[in-house]
Amino acid sequence: MFFRTNQFQYNARPEAPDPVYARKLQEVLGGQWGEISVMMTYLFQGWNCRAPAKYRDMILDIGTEEIAHVEMIATMIARLLESSPVEAAEEAAKNSAVGAILGGSRLEDVIVAGMNPQHAIVSGGGAVPADSVGYPWTARYTIASGNLLADFRFNVTAESQGRLQVCRLYELTDDPGIRDMLSFLIARDTMHQNQWLAAIAELEADGLDATPVPKAFSREKEMGDVAYQFWDCSGGSESREGRWASGPTPDGTGEFVYLGKPSPLGEVVECLGPVDPRLFGTPKALQPPT
Amino acid sequence: MFFRTNQFQYNARPEAPDPVYARKLQEVLGGQWGEISVMMTYLFQGWNCRAPAKYRDMILDIGTEEIAHVEMIATMIARLLESSPVEAAEEAAKNSAVGAILGGSRLEDVIVAGMNPQHAIVSGGGAVPADSVGYPWTARYTIASGNLLADFRFNVTAESQGRLQVCRLYELTDDPGIRDMLSFLIARDTMHQNQWLAAIAELEADGLDATPVPKAFSREKEMGDVAYQFWDCSGGSESREGRWASGPTPDGTGEFVYLGKPSPLGEVVECLGPVDPRLFGTPKALQPPT
Amino acid sequence: MFFRTNQFQYNARPEAPDPVYARKLQEVLGGQWGEISVMMTYLFQGWNCRAPAKYRDMILDIGTEEIAHVEMIATMIARLLESSPVEAAEEAAKNSAVGAILGGSRLEDVIVAGMNPQHAIVSGGGAVPADSVGYPWTARYTIASGNLLADFRFNVTAESQGRLQVCRLYELTDDPGIRDMLSFLIARDTMHQNQWLAAIAELEADGLDATPVPKAFSREKEMGDVAYQFWDCSGGSESREGRWASGPTPDGTGEFVYLGKPSPLGEVVECLGPVDPRLFGTPKALQPPT
Amino acid sequence: MFFRTNQFQYNARPEAPDPVYARKLQEVLGGQWGEISVMMTYLFQGWNCRAPAKYRDMILDIGTEEIAHVEMIATMIARLLESSPVEAAEEAAKNSAVGAILGGSRLEDVIVAGMNPQHAIVSGGGAVPADSVGYPWTARYTIASGNLLADFRFNVTAESQGRLQVCRLYELTDDPGIRDMLSFLIARDTMHQNQWLAAIAELEADGLDATPVPKAFSREKEMGDVAYQFWDCSGGSESREGRWASGPTPDGTGEFVYLGKPSPLGEVVECLGPVDPRLFGTPKALQPPT
Amino acid sequence: MFFRTNQFQYNARPEAPDPVYARKLQEVLGGQWGEISVMMTYLFQGWNCRAPAKYRDMILDIGTEEIAHVEMIATMIARLLESSPVEAAEEAAKNSAVGAILGGSRLEDVIVAGMNPQHAIVSGGGAVPADSVGYPWTARYTIASGNLLADFRFNVTAESQGRLQVCRLYELTDDPGIRDMLSFLIARDTMHQNQWLAAIAELEADGLDATPVPKAFSREKEMGDVAYQFWDCSGGSESREGRWASGPTPDGTGEFVYLGKPSPLGEVVECLGPVDPRLFGTPKALQPPT
Amino acid sequence: MFFRTNQFQYNARPEAPDPVYARKLQEVLGGQWGEISVMMTYLFQGWNCRAPAKYRDMILDIGTEEIAHVEMIATMIARLLESSPVEAAEEAAKNSAVGAILGGSRLEDVIVAGMNPQHAIVSGGGAVPADSVGYPWTARYTIASGNLLADFRFNVTAESQGRLQVCRLYELTDDPGIRDMLSFLIARDTMHQNQWLAAIAELEADGLDATPVPKAFSREKEMGDVAYQFWDCSGGSESREGRWASGPTPDGTGEFVYLGKPSPLGEVVECLGPVDPRLFGTPKALQPPT
Repeated sequence: MFFRTNQFQYNARPEAPDPVYARKLQEVLGGQWGEISVMMTYLFQGWNCRAPAKYRDMILDIGTEEIAHVEMIATMIARLLESSPVEAAEEAAKNSAVGAILGGSRLEDVIVAGMNPQHAIVSGGGAVPADSVGYPWTARYTIASGNLLADFRFNVTAESQGRLQVCRLYELTDDPGIRDMLSFLIARDTMHQNQWLAAIAELEADGLDATPVPKAFSREKEMGDVAYQFWDCSGGSESREGRWASGPTPDGTGEFVYLGKPSPLGEVVECLGPVDPRLFGTPKALQPPT
Repeated sequence: MFFRTNQFQYNARPEAPDPVYARKLQEVLGGQWGEISVMMTYLFQGWNCRAPAKYRDMILDIGTEEIAHVEMIATMIARLLESSPVEAAEEAAKNSAVGAILGGSRLEDVIVAGMNPQHAIVSGGGAVPADSVGYPWTARYTIASGNLLADFRFNVTAESQGRLQVCRLYELTDDPGIRDMLSFLIARDTMHQNQWLAAIAELEADGLDATPVPKAFSREKEMGDVAYQFWDCSGGSESREGRWASGPTPDGTGEFVYLGKPSPLGEVVECLGPVDPRLFGTPKALQPPT
Repeated sequence: MFFRTNQFQYNARPEAPDPVYARKLQEVLGGQWGEISVMMTYLFQGWNCRAPAKYRDMILDIGTEEIAHVEMIATMIARLLESSPVEAAEEAAKNSAVGAILGGSRLEDVIVAGMNPQHAIVSGGGAVPADSVGYPWTARYTIASGNLLADFRFNVTAESQGRLQVCRLYELTDDPGIRDMLSFLIARDTMHQNQWLAAIAELEADGLDATPVPKAFSREKEMGDVAYQFWDCSGGSESREGRWASGPTPDGTGEFVYLGKPSPLGEVVECLGPVDPRLFGTPKALQPPT
Repeated sequence: MFFRTNQFQYNARPEAPDPVYARKLQEVLGGQWGEISVMMTYLFQGWNCRAPAKYRDMILDIGTEEIAHVEMIATMIARLLESSPVEAAEEAAKNSAVGAILGGSRLEDVIVAGMNPQHAIVSGGGAVPADSVGYPWTARYTIASGNLLADFRFNVTAESQGRLQVCRLYELTDDPGIRDMLSFLIARDTMHQNQWLAAIAELEADGLDATPVPKAFSREKEMGDVAYQFWDCSGGSESREGRWASGPTPDGTGEFVYLGKPSPLGEVVECLGPVDPRLFGTPKALQPPT
Repeated sequence: MFFRTNQFQYNARPEAPDPVYARKLQEVLGGQWGEISVMMTYLFQGWNCRAPAKYRDMILDIGTEEIAHVEMIATMIARLLESSPVEAAEEAAKNSAVGAILGGSRLEDVIVAGMNPQHAIVSGGGAVPADSVGYPWTARYTIASGNLLADFRFNVTAESQGRLQVCRLYELTDDPGIRDMLSFLIARDTMHQNQWLAAIAELEADGLDATPVPKAFSREKEMGDVAYQFWDCSGGSESREGRWASGPTPDGTGEFVYLGKPSPLGEVVECLGPVDPRLFGTPKALQPPT
Repeated sequence: MFFRTNQFQYNARPEAPDPVYARKLQEVLGGQWGEISVMMTYLFQGWNCRAPAKYRDMILDIGTEEIAHVEMIATMIARLLESSPVEAAEEAAKNSAVGAILGGSRLEDVIVAGMNPQHAIVSGGGAVPADSVGYPWTARYTIASGNLLADFRFNVTAESQGRLQVCRLYELTDDPGIRDMLSFLIARDTMHQNQWLAAIAELEADGLDATPVPKAFSREKEMGDVAYQFWDCSGGSESREGRWASGPTPDGTGEFVYLGKPSPLGEVVECLGPVDPRLFGTPKALQPPT
């Protein structure tokens, strides 16, 4: 069960409203790599967790923290929308020079073009659970497979993509209040990248899984011949230069082999067989009338 | 530019049709971690790549290979649908004992209930670009951020989740033909997990990025105080036991600190300010009529 | 069966084209609370209705009317797009002062930035069934549960959210033709809010349902102890001041009770049990090799 | 900021696993009217709230409680999946009589047909944030308009549709553990229907809004003539019998008027005007070659 | 404006309820090629039409007719759900032999597995605007480009895919009532295929467009060299045998040319250029610290 | 299996970067009628094809070619984003006159408003598999029914809508490099419209299908009376003037009949029957308490 305290984890107050930046900031609220995604991902991984308690507990610690991040960014967006673009534009529109230049277009429309119109029409000046193009958050961004190594690898990714996006957003504003909040979130992403990398090390040290995930699947069932071959299927040969093309494999049980001119191993494709004629597909040959 | 040879990368022929299994196999064709996802992800990462040529070339090598995997699974599904469930069911329905037991329900419906009905009605016995619940593949599964470390971490994840799902599917069938194909795909996923791990090592050795991603963002701009703290936001203290709670951090520049009873650092939340009254939101206090 | 007359329910002609406003107006055509949503919701409620005829008939009366509203707004948008933003921009671009100021950016792009580009590229100057950010209308906006009290409550909501959005859009334009049409739609939303409130009263008077919906579910099956408790799960105690925290409940059968410091009633969460090992989830403890 | 206690709000333990019921229960976890929807809706309404503190506080109290409901149902589903349908089916499949009857179809497939295959392949025996047909939860289910009367009406609807669905699910199982949890949730929905009805009364008593929402929009701007007319657009005249067709309107300022044979008020539709020829639409008349 | 008569265009009454078939029939109600799609497509094409009146009028005639088809199928589905699968299953479950065979699984679950669970939990026995896998109808199925030849070609397709699906559904049932309704719909699809083919002929006869669409785009602006070449990019040479590989082209202005071993015409791909370093992408070479 | 050569099918290099045009160009990359759609559609039609080899081979030839088109447009977009809109805007913002006119709004925001913000925040200057409003490509754009006549008709449509959109985009830019690439794509669309029209002729000549699709469904099963009637369901009588209203039908087996005042043929709609009371729908009449 959850409880909320009436204090933010960190500040979330811009120096000035900015409806255009509000739209961009939506990306790290309701976008694929935004805070809702990590909140939901970690909570579902925790609730579904069947591993030792330290893992479950750790996952839910961070999952709960992420709700606070969602709260901060949502509040920041709501405050960025407190200005009145409509009124500001009306003032500006009185400038006849501009009006003339734009040939009748209202300047308001030009300025507000950078806004998400739903910030005015739908949410009335509030944050929305959508990304920077207005696409709504979808639960397909929630990853919880039951296999913690596969999932922790996702979590490292999420904190990497997330920190990357927040860093980009930091560079897109000069507002000290926004930057203050983002510097906190960036630091937490630093922590969480480290945290998940440490968790992967712990999981492997505990012998619970390893590369190739899932370790518990018998290696005898896979086709060993092709398990360490690099197939060069695209023109150019620069790919031969990397670590992935020669030397021992990271899983410690193989050697990379480079196939410069790979050949298919499967059958030459003939036509498929027929299906039930009542599906009215186009058959290989003419059929007598039914 | 691309060319296709009329031979499969590996075999894709089941011993017998099985429309119910065809539905399940859709998950690794058109699901979130299926072959279309890695095909599109790698191709877009390659086309957008601005890094040294060995990376771009390597990414496009594997991206091109994945098209062949899509082809194999699509063909396998088409062949699994070659049986006529309608006819089979009609034969079965003649068995009066069963008819009696089911109290009037047609056995056909029971058997075919496990099928994806769109395999009959929409595709007429062909594979569809959707997952095992019929949800269509969406390009939100394509990840290409321009930052290769963030993306390679995603790629390791994708090959981990993908291998996990194929291993599960392997256990869900006894058909030797299906298992033959899956054993090939599992081995390629073994290769590709290793490949991306090696690529991460190469990228870090080349100094192009490091933890915390993105390295190029100045660490001075982030709030160092909270960059290595573990916040225990959920009941239980087992999370104190893991590597993520003490000792050096994987990025080599910090020490984990465990906060057992974390306190918020932000403001006590007061109400938000007002927005333009023409948005007709509910205000803090009664307003005179407009 | 349906018939159409070649006359609009009301006027739908702007004084002047305005492609930027056209984008915003899409919200009440193809948005969540737009006219397509109420059209489809009422039609499906009507077609699925198993209640007395007066309800079915009334629902289909308004469902049929809503098709006319869709028609009006679609036409208005098509007319707002009759101007040629391309040509207008070209004229404007000849103004060298502006060109210099914008440092090479084409003014056309700036102006047209406020448009939905699909209004040019996809629909060729026609309305699209999407909202103001271009997200396509989805049938998840259609609500028809088979329970009319639950649905009529939705309908009141839809007419409230819809009127709210149209009022916001009214304030965002000065065009007399647009305002004329919106004043008609706002009035119809006034009617329909009243209509659905009256329908709720009628339904309760007829004894067909009541709070808590669904009345037909036996109250003995629910856990009466917690049916009227307010749980204060978030910091702050202002919530104690409202009607929802004390006094008789609207359903007439209880008294609100305020729990200022609620405690969980469920079990302390231990780890979950195991699943089939062939799912390759991370287990609670090391398992012998399979 | 949020904290989590390691105890459930109420019990969430079935008497026995049941993967088929697990699929159905997903509806009230990740469906349109499920617990994630109300959790997100109330949290966003609270974070965006600019109204008096008692409203904001109350909304966040219930929003925080709803996270606990999500947790309970997710856990229940994870437990319902602990059984091994694969093993059970294998046992059953040994029964040769059945095998014969089914004419080669594996019984496993028939039984498991009722499962969501993603519960095995994707989540490995865990809950997923999707509904009973596997459609992922989408943030379009989150409603927060900035106008509390419009939103509270939605909230009453959500608790009505939600209680309706949980009652239906209650009737679809005999498992005492599931029914125990559902009886708690049904009671909370009873509370919350009452709570939002009380909140609407409070909001109107405080004079912050009223029917027709939004009250702050001047009635003079709407077309008064049609604000209380019932238009009978569909055959049948039973709709004349209801309260919505005569008598005073619920907003207290009008009288319902019944239009039995309504006539359009708008223009006879002529063809639309032309658009820019560079859009290559089909014109009204042949144009000279460009 | 629209009016509805209280009589169906044709009958929509099954001989007996059948919840499993109801799920399948959803495909032609709310699927990609179902009746909602053609209804919305034709209405939007009509409302957006700027061509001579005979086209606009014809499009709206058929668009209006399609609403009646939606109504018929929705009603058919609602009637197919009138049976009580719960009660039927309970009767069946009393059969102890079955219970023993199924090893504890409830037969009800097996039978009902073929249903869409939302038909019970969400719509309470009513039709839903979704397809046969429960995916909601989306407005991306609505095609209206402003160019009638492009759109009429889509319409021929829609009536072809639609008739194909209805024919498949006809073969999947023996119910005389369902077949009666489907025989009507199939005939109308026959008409509408013919109608759109005739409309294409008329449009071309009127000189309003032609192959290649859009005719109004100057042929001089396209690269004539490659406008009639068949590129054989996939192994096999059977494609040389078809009409598309030699002889005059259908547009009457060219000859097909077969390129058996096509070569790329573009540049050899070098790496892309750099982007703004504040986007933190991976660069081609190490950069000095910022 | 597929191979890639490190050379483009044709050039894909703009004369100058243009992030605003990049957004528009996304429409023909990841939009409904963009290159990803035809690539996936043709590949799936080919992989699922059960018709004579010349069809399968031809479909896969073009499907493979389309991957090259996706590659070209993705590369073009990546190059259009190479400019630094941030830097450009900063330069421009130094112009104090503009700053004054815009009343404090940053010009950067105005210019960049026309960009897709995800081109900066998400892809870091790369193409994304989405359309011009940022809506991600979805596999519902992939059409493969198993019936080639139905599908080839779709393919003609796709090449028509696609050519139309590329022609519109051609008119929206003056950049010679972009126009060069588009002139190639337009020519290929000319070829492909002709190709599919020829394929339809071939298919009919081979007797594999005909109007009305599917030919194999017995005409006796459809309701012949209504198979050639035009129903005038919308006001206006101009529709009587077209070829669709009189004369022989294109399928060669009927005569169009015009019904100016069509009457419904179905039953007068009474209320529906009841469903299981445990679904708690609103019944036709009061029921005794359960």
